[in-house]
Amino acid sequence: MPPEVEGGETTERVLQILSTSARLFATTGYDGTSMRDIALACGISKSLLYHHFADKDEIFARITLGSTRELVQFVESRLPEGAAPSLRIRAFMAATGEYFQRYRWAWIASTTAFWNDPQQRRQTERMLWRDRYEGLIRRLIEEAIAAGEIRPLDVPLAGRLVLSALNWMHRWHKPDQGMPAPEVAEAYFDMIFHGLKR
Amino acid sequence: MPPEVEGGETTERVLQILSTSARLFATTGYDGTSMRDIALACGISKSLLYHHFADKDEIFARITLGSTRELVQFVESRLPEGAAPSLRIRAFMAATGEYFQRYRWAWIASTTAFWNDPQQRRQTERMLWRDRYEGLIRRLIEEAIAAGEIRPLDVPLAGRLVLSALNWMHRWHKPDQGMPAPEVAEAYFDMIFHGLKR
Repeated sequence: MPPEVEGGETTERVLQILSTSARLFATTGYDGTSMRDIALACGISKSLLYHHFADKDEIFARITLGSTRELVQFVESRLPEGAAPSLRIRAFMAATGEYFQRYRWAWIASTTAFWNDPQQRRQTERMLWRDRYEGLIRRLIEEAIAAGEIRPLDVPLAGRLVLSALNWMHRWHKPDQGMPAPEVAEAYFDMIFHGLKR
Repeated sequence: MPPEVEGGETTERVLQILSTSARLFATTGYDGTSMRDIALACGISKSLLYHHFADKDEIFARITLGSTRELVQFVESRLPEGAAPSLRIRAFMAATGEYFQRYRWAWIASTTAFWNDPQQRRQTERMLWRDRYEGLIRRLIEEAIAAGEIRPLDVPLAGRLVLSALNWMHRWHKPDQGMPAPEVAEAYFDMIFHGLKR
């Protein structure tokens, strides 16, 4: 998890708990992970864990909401201002690949939690960030159409194509193996923008 | 689940159990679904359920293995023989969209089971079918390159782009709403093959 996740109160200890929990949630699922497992994996007592977090839900919500919000802010900060819309789309994709690579466990914990998030309200706030992320890629595609770089097409569907490519990476991409994730994202941009056609 | 799933012993009752279980696994997860839940949802006794299936694992493995194998066989049967490779790629994508639409719950149960399949050996057999499916799209892309329809490029990555678009559909596509899944798949083919570029 990035240090900026929750403003003030992110001590080293809290960061350690969040990153360890993210790995546990990602590998054994929300239901398969207990507060005891988290304390054990962090090498701390359960009482110290409860000093920082009221329950498993709180840790989980902070990881999933935090990583979604941070993704959006990270990607927005990486868009080159004043550049051609197509280059901004490329930067959007590369930044997502980089974020995925850096915070892989939080990413996987968040994406696999999609179907049964324990806290509906927290899910809702996360979805607002998710919508903002999806809104951003659609706006970039619209700008590219307006600039004559992209042909007129179904913008929401084109946005989904871009996001599908990025969102599916966690299912096959192995860290420290093969092409780094940001390069994969750029190769995807090249294929989608120029097409596979000879 | 399609009737061909397991050859001989697929009675109406078994099909009902499989399709009901698929919906339960898809919506509440493997861990969140018990044999009691399945019996209740099917409106049958637990003893009748156990007459057909030894345990939850058996039901689950039959859904996930069965739906993966059937997907491959269905898609293979839909490829137009002797057609241009690009048209065969388009048919591959449309057939996957159709299969997804028909057996949505089994699809979702299978895909969300990725991280913690309870039976490693059954997972292995399913992965063989998954590899055959991925091998098929790669071969079609290679044929399109050899035929001069697609430019020389990273074939495994191009295959992943196609599969990512299809595999992510279950996360946003709503049945009986908007564009049918096979049409979405064809629109994706058009975007990927021709590119977004003007």
